[in-house]
Amino acid sequence: MRQSELFGGTMREAPKDEVAVNAKLLERGGFVHKTMAGVYDWLPLGLRVLNNVNAIIREEMNAIGGVEVFLSALQPKERWEKTARWEVLADIMYQFKDHSGRDVGLAVTHEEAVSEIATRFIHSYKDLPRFIYQIQTKFRDEPRAKSGVIRGREFLMKDLYSFHRDEADLEKFYAKADKAYRRIFTRCGVDVLVTEASGGTFTKNFSHEYQAVSEAGEDFTLSCEKCRYAQNKEISTITEGETCPKCGGVIRGAKTIEVGNIFKLGTKFSEAFGVSYADETGERRPVFMGCYGIGPGRLVGTVAEVNHDERGLIWPEAVAPFRVHLVALFGKEKSVRQKVVREADRLYEKLLAKGVAVLYDERGETSAGEKFADADLLGIPWRVVVSEKTCAAHAFEVKRRSVAKVTMMSWDVLMKKIVPTTRRRG
Amino acid sequence: MRQSELFGGTMREAPKDEVAVNAKLLERGGFVHKTMAGVYDWLPLGLRVLNNVNAIIREEMNAIGGVEVFLSALQPKERWEKTARWEVLADIMYQFKDHSGRDVGLAVTHEEAVSEIATRFIHSYKDLPRFIYQIQTKFRDEPRAKSGVIRGREFLMKDLYSFHRDEADLEKFYAKADKAYRRIFTRCGVDVLVTEASGGTFTKNFSHEYQAVSEAGEDFTLSCEKCRYAQNKEISTITEGETCPKCGGVIRGAKTIEVGNIFKLGTKFSEAFGVSYADETGERRPVFMGCYGIGPGRLVGTVAEVNHDERGLIWPEAVAPFRVHLVALFGKEKSVRQKVVREADRLYEKLLAKGVAVLYDERGETSAGEKFADADLLGIPWRVVVSEKTCAAHAFEVKRRSVAKVTMMSWDVLMKKIVPTTRRRG
Repeated sequence: MRQSELFGGTMREAPKDEVAVNAKLLERGGFVHKTMAGVYDWLPLGLRVLNNVNAIIREEMNAIGGVEVFLSALQPKERWEKTARWEVLADIMYQFKDHSGRDVGLAVTHEEAVSEIATRFIHSYKDLPRFIYQIQTKFRDEPRAKSGVIRGREFLMKDLYSFHRDEADLEKFYAKADKAYRRIFTRCGVDVLVTEASGGTFTKNFSHEYQAVSEAGEDFTLSCEKCRYAQNKEISTITEGETCPKCGGVIRGAKTIEVGNIFKLGTKFSEAFGVSYADETGERRPVFMGCYGIGPGRLVGTVAEVNHDERGLIWPEAVAPFRVHLVALFGKEKSVRQKVVREADRLYEKLLAKGVAVLYDERGETSAGEKFADADLLGIPWRVVVSEKTCAAHAFEVKRRSVAKVTMMSWDVLMKKIVPTTRRRG
Repeated sequence: MRQSELFGGTMREAPKDEVAVNAKLLERGGFVHKTMAGVYDWLPLGLRVLNNVNAIIREEMNAIGGVEVFLSALQPKERWEKTARWEVLADIMYQFKDHSGRDVGLAVTHEEAVSEIATRFIHSYKDLPRFIYQIQTKFRDEPRAKSGVIRGREFLMKDLYSFHRDEADLEKFYAKADKAYRRIFTRCGVDVLVTEASGGTFTKNFSHEYQAVSEAGEDFTLSCEKCRYAQNKEISTITEGETCPKCGGVIRGAKTIEVGNIFKLGTKFSEAFGVSYADETGERRPVFMGCYGIGPGRLVGTVAEVNHDERGLIWPEAVAPFRVHLVALFGKEKSVRQKVVREADRLYEKLLAKGVAVLYDERGETSAGEKFADADLLGIPWRVVVSEKTCAAHAFEVKRRSVAKVTMMSWDVLMKKIVPTTRRRG
């Protein structure tokens, strides 16, 4: 799209009320707008990144059999009393009365909802297993919300719930989900440690967390440098500087961002809601459940934290809002301007026709310096400059955001480099 | 997908607590689940319909220059005090205090939010016009919520906001938006009357509503049978039985469902938030705004209200959850069963490979009668039966949901009829 049509724009200075790097960069670049602490609006550039992350998540969830649903945020108190979580989660759940005096809350998670729904559809062993997921907005009244889009009071969540006839089947799917999670983070360009952690209010079993190493992390993860065995600090059976129980390597500690988690719920929720099935002999048994969460917005924030330099963001190709940032430098002379417009327009149209996502900086009165600074801030993988100089050389000036080198390329070479030869997976 | 993998299932009887036809059919068919009055969960089948509607809306909004954003539901009170709507909308807005004692609310609409954001990006006449939209969940504490997904307390809304340098430019876009709206409803199979109506809390000017004629309607629309000139009853300059002021035809009244509306906001919101621009002479002027709403969930409910018979839903092709309902009737003999499975599987795989969305009823112990009743209830456009009889005839039994006739078709004829020759628009 043309940059002048964007509902966005960059700020020279980082917003003064932000501490987190992701928030500073995303707000400066016009990816998000802050409505209040922990509550962000996704502007066109930011939404494109978020949608790319969502698309990757959907592909991987569909690939392991997930079927998509979309559940409500508004929740009746009675539903949450069945698991006592109306009380347990009262500190972080928005709970209020509607105009008729009824107690309602905003969902922080959906185990209660899916369990209630499952009683309608799961009756027999033939109805198992089932895997449903959604990408939907959750609300959480965080006491501190200083980590930008990483810890929001309102945030998107992908939550998958699985239903099984027994623990063995749950274990089997849990391992599949773990693999899908690793693929998601790899595809988004985020290196994660898979840690053992406690189950919180969900389960007494261990759960697993996907922790990205970053200075912006609010968690502390202990991990072995050699075999990558990792634990969340809170369970603490390994200690920094000591020897890894798995391989004998050295355990190190690091601040990390939790980008995903998976839990074996067992029968806690199915027993509370009566989600049971008749087995082959007709005997009724409780369903085993698992839950699997990723925050897509938090993941975008994490990508920003681990992929930037002092000049701005450096989006990995798979999640970048556009593949190409086409920057036209018009100069002052009318004849030069016309030549540059013609050449830049031609390239823009051609790339669009080839299915390449292009942000076209055709702003008239912005200086070359400002355009380059904006391109660095926005962090689109390929920057292609059209100017008097490039027109004279019958070439384009090409620079990847992640490397310093600038290269002159002919039309044909540029096309070969920039137009993806294979379609994106999925 | 295979019907046995769906998180869904049909109910023989309509739920007792539902009055509206759309809710009865959508719940019976497993398209939605009711969490509480006016709050519905979208299950896999329902979400597919909703996503089809959303895709049509996105195409038409993008075609008139709309750029997508995703704004927050949580809203600070201070923002809404600038237009006095914290008070004005208090009856229908969920308003509560967070744990720190701050007043927050859930957005019923986003004029305040977009106006605040626009002050960041609109400075000069060169920054105009701009068109942003979102498809996002809104909350509204409806005193009565008896119309199923048509009047929800939590519902999806597509809301577009336009920003203009003057009234003439707003008028021009308003007319374009009107055309896009008509295309959306036509594509979704809903015939609408475009009515003049009052502007509510948005504007003192007339607005326009898109009203679908249906017994389930909560509105009352007066319209001319000849020229289709229409008014919402509340403005009442025309009366039932009288003569149309435009063409001399007869004015009739009908209950209708409001499926969309468009408003010229003028400068009400831009003045409250200071959204202004410098014109060519440097003089500062207020921005003119318009807003344009459609409820995708309500539209699904309306499609259900106007497209059903006593046996179930009859989805128009463009929004149907699947194009083909492939029904395999296995019979009791093993050899027959194997033959039917082989033939049905072959057709299923082939249709999937051709990009046709198929729901495959391969449930083993469901009777032919139940399968046909379910197919009628779910309302998928093409029903294709594979059975002992069809295998013997080297053909398939094909029935369109909207017509009574059953036809035997050979593989080749079936493929020609069912595989779309052109890609869907967009």
